[in-house]
Amino acid sequence: MELPARLGLTQLAEAFSSGQLSPVEVVRHALRRIARLDPVLNSYLSVTADHALERARQAESEIRAGRHKGPLHGVPYAAKDLLDTKGIRTTVGSRILSDNVPAADAAVVESLSAAGAILLGKTGMHEWAYGITNNNPHFGPVRNPWNTERIPGGSSGGSAAALAAGLCSFSLGSDTGGSIRIPAALCGIAGLKPTFGRVSRRGAFPLGHTLDTLGPFGLTVQDTALAYHAIAGRDGADPTTVDKPVELPRFDAEPSLKGVVIGVPRASYYECLDPAVDSAVQSALSVLTGIGAQLREVAVPDIDLANSLHRLILLAEGTSVHHRRLEEHREQFGDDVRALLDQGRLVLASDYLNAQRQRKRFCREFARTLETVDALVAPAVPIPTARIGELEVEVNGRLENVRLATTRNIRALNLTGLPVLSVPCGFHSDGLPIGIQIVGKAFDERRVLEIGHAYETATEWHLRIPPIARSPVPSDTAPGAP
Amino acid sequence: MELPARLGLTQLAEAFSSGQLSPVEVVRHALRRIARLDPVLNSYLSVTADHALERARQAESEIRAGRHKGPLHGVPYAAKDLLDTKGIRTTVGSRILSDNVPAADAAVVESLSAAGAILLGKTGMHEWAYGITNNNPHFGPVRNPWNTERIPGGSSGGSAAALAAGLCSFSLGSDTGGSIRIPAALCGIAGLKPTFGRVSRRGAFPLGHTLDTLGPFGLTVQDTALAYHAIAGRDGADPTTVDKPVELPRFDAEPSLKGVVIGVPRASYYECLDPAVDSAVQSALSVLTGIGAQLREVAVPDIDLANSLHRLILLAEGTSVHHRRLEEHREQFGDDVRALLDQGRLVLASDYLNAQRQRKRFCREFARTLETVDALVAPAVPIPTARIGELEVEVNGRLENVRLATTRNIRALNLTGLPVLSVPCGFHSDGLPIGIQIVGKAFDERRVLEIGHAYETATEWHLRIPPIARSPVPSDTAPGAP
Repeated sequence: MELPARLGLTQLAEAFSSGQLSPVEVVRHALRRIARLDPVLNSYLSVTADHALERARQAESEIRAGRHKGPLHGVPYAAKDLLDTKGIRTTVGSRILSDNVPAADAAVVESLSAAGAILLGKTGMHEWAYGITNNNPHFGPVRNPWNTERIPGGSSGGSAAALAAGLCSFSLGSDTGGSIRIPAALCGIAGLKPTFGRVSRRGAFPLGHTLDTLGPFGLTVQDTALAYHAIAGRDGADPTTVDKPVELPRFDAEPSLKGVVIGVPRASYYECLDPAVDSAVQSALSVLTGIGAQLREVAVPDIDLANSLHRLILLAEGTSVHHRRLEEHREQFGDDVRALLDQGRLVLASDYLNAQRQRKRFCREFARTLETVDALVAPAVPIPTARIGELEVEVNGRLENVRLATTRNIRALNLTGLPVLSVPCGFHSDGLPIGIQIVGKAFDERRVLEIGHAYETATEWHLRIPPIARSPVPSDTAPGAP
Repeated sequence: MELPARLGLTQLAEAFSSGQLSPVEVVRHALRRIARLDPVLNSYLSVTADHALERARQAESEIRAGRHKGPLHGVPYAAKDLLDTKGIRTTVGSRILSDNVPAADAAVVESLSAAGAILLGKTGMHEWAYGITNNNPHFGPVRNPWNTERIPGGSSGGSAAALAAGLCSFSLGSDTGGSIRIPAALCGIAGLKPTFGRVSRRGAFPLGHTLDTLGPFGLTVQDTALAYHAIAGRDGADPTTVDKPVELPRFDAEPSLKGVVIGVPRASYYECLDPAVDSAVQSALSVLTGIGAQLREVAVPDIDLANSLHRLILLAEGTSVHHRRLEEHREQFGDDVRALLDQGRLVLASDYLNAQRQRKRFCREFARTLETVDALVAPAVPIPTARIGELEVEVNGRLENVRLATTRNIRALNLTGLPVLSVPCGFHSDGLPIGIQIVGKAFDERRVLEIGHAYETATEWHLRIPPIARSPVPSDTAPGAP
């Protein structure tokens, strides 16, 4: 049987349930696709072929024996290489940890194993998760499946690129300043940054400990929701996690947003916005009203101030993680990350603490804005997708710093800890995807996912497949080795 | 009727209940004592005579009408001048806030009002609570009632001195690095630093936001416990407070410590220890075994490391509170506090964050030590009580810095957040009191207070009265005005 280019979680769950497909067949297919496409994309740092095939055989016999564990059972996924995997190399995209083999799985990996999901491999990332281009000096750049000369976004770029290209069925990333939402937007898939405290960070390498959040990528919002559901919940070993019920959204076939009020932030959210992004977001807002949502313009707190706070807090926290390592192995850090870590060493403790205090005020104001609506919708990445190695990109005739402009509407949300879903909402004229963010109230992932699902159902952006992923992969190719 | 020199909370509760004394009579008595003694002691910054008399009349009529609210009803107390009091000047011991009149009561003041306690006044403190001598450059030194040339300890020195001298019936302080336990020890009374998170800090001026804890002073452990009970508990407006049951200890007339295991930390706790303190603590340990306790030597984590961590964390947090104020009003800060705030400006954010990380490890180790016992007992202030203005004091023939040596066994416990009670356990040959600390498990104030009560019942240290407080106060003296 000729398999489609991309097989998402929900699709596979149904095909396994009905016996149309088997986990072994799907894992073999994925490994063949990796062998064929990843030499170009470079989305995987390690492929765990043997491990995956063994698990696939196990899942296959369990499902055949009628012990189907649920929608993730037998489904192959990829994990960002900052998530510990027992016995499997975990580099955090760094040279220093290039031979690091953890003794235990990260909590999220543990949860996915328990749900029967199959780890296909560990994905490429920006070094130490500290950047958004995914142009890794030690392992090479991850490439965008829509145009391999462009960045996939980062720091979870490998997870997004692999999924968009059909090299796994869902994937995991982390988001400290946009590292899930940016690659989701740039690779044309869905990505959820859950509420801070929703997903255990045990066994995840830190960057900014008051900002870091783990979350899933999916080809659809429903895929994203099912993966999220499997990893969410309190973990005694991570004191930042909370004990709040994790509800699965409703996935109606013909969803309506009647009665749902969506806030549209104005002013500062629309500075430095590429016209194509602007028009895609305006179309998305029309689609939302078309399915019943009521739009309301809202004022959001000063985003430039928030971005400065985020910058100062992350600089300090990032350097606190790496300072000793940097002193000992200075030459083993990439130039961009080393520069950020040096900058972070200049942040004074009293300024950091006052930034945290101002952050609280910003969060209170942001929460008040959200009180009047069910969710906010805003552009994700506001600029065209940069070429690999490009540091500046032209927006409305002005050159903008790629890192700052890319994260402009995104990183302040890490200050708030609120849940944010990025979904595809259009394409640039150069064929690169555009994303919107749906921002929910704290721990209200359900609502965010339902709005995302309703929007997606009314559009077809998520169904487009990147050119590189369309070429058929012959079934006689041998499974790729790690 | 000639009233005794000192009237504690429990004593008054019984006398009010039985009608032997009335709140108005007691408040008048206290105001006369303040008028007579406080010109020397300088323990009050503001005396709220009118307010107190009005409340006393109200309490009196309520109690006569059979509406006795409980043991605090009608009992006069003093509050450290960093606790907001509605309409009453709150200086935080500073010149900058010397005219500050808050619009609302601090949570603890609110709680005591609800319990019927009567605020007699606001007590002197080390400027901004940032020091332990209570030698305040703006309002003059608070003096130790046992010897008015000596420091009372600080930063809650006014609250301790006022209570020890019989100028109130219990009092409130705050403890960031020993500011309750040190003046309790030096003034020969009981003082409780509750578990971090036990008492709301709403309306309390901050110094170190991850260290600050509010708590009571009492003439007896039972007085301390009753005051603690009235102010403890979750407050929605202070997110650091937790919702755990607050149990009143049992106060048996002949308490036994049978079955209770008390850990005795060795090694580093006994460096830099004055022989008189050493021998008082050894005697206290004998008393504890005499009433049934089992002693067990335990190893505690490196106290010098912990003290360094405490220092770095407090320097950074203190400066984050005051940095802007210091830039604008540099000349309005006392020399010692200004020097600390300048030092704090040098702390780097990444070092602060790593100190917080090391603090967690220290806390885990400390908690493990406590797992094997019910509580720890250790010397509180290990050195003789300094003269006012003295920066160094001789211990075992060596000159020690007063601030560092005084806090040596004390401030590391603020890192852990654990509950600690200080009770009197003897006297130096110069007549100054000595105290021991009883350290409990997190949120186990009940056990700590029960051990303290049992110890106190077997000793008479808490019954001694400072010389200055013994002289009779004529009943014809007019009530002191603010």
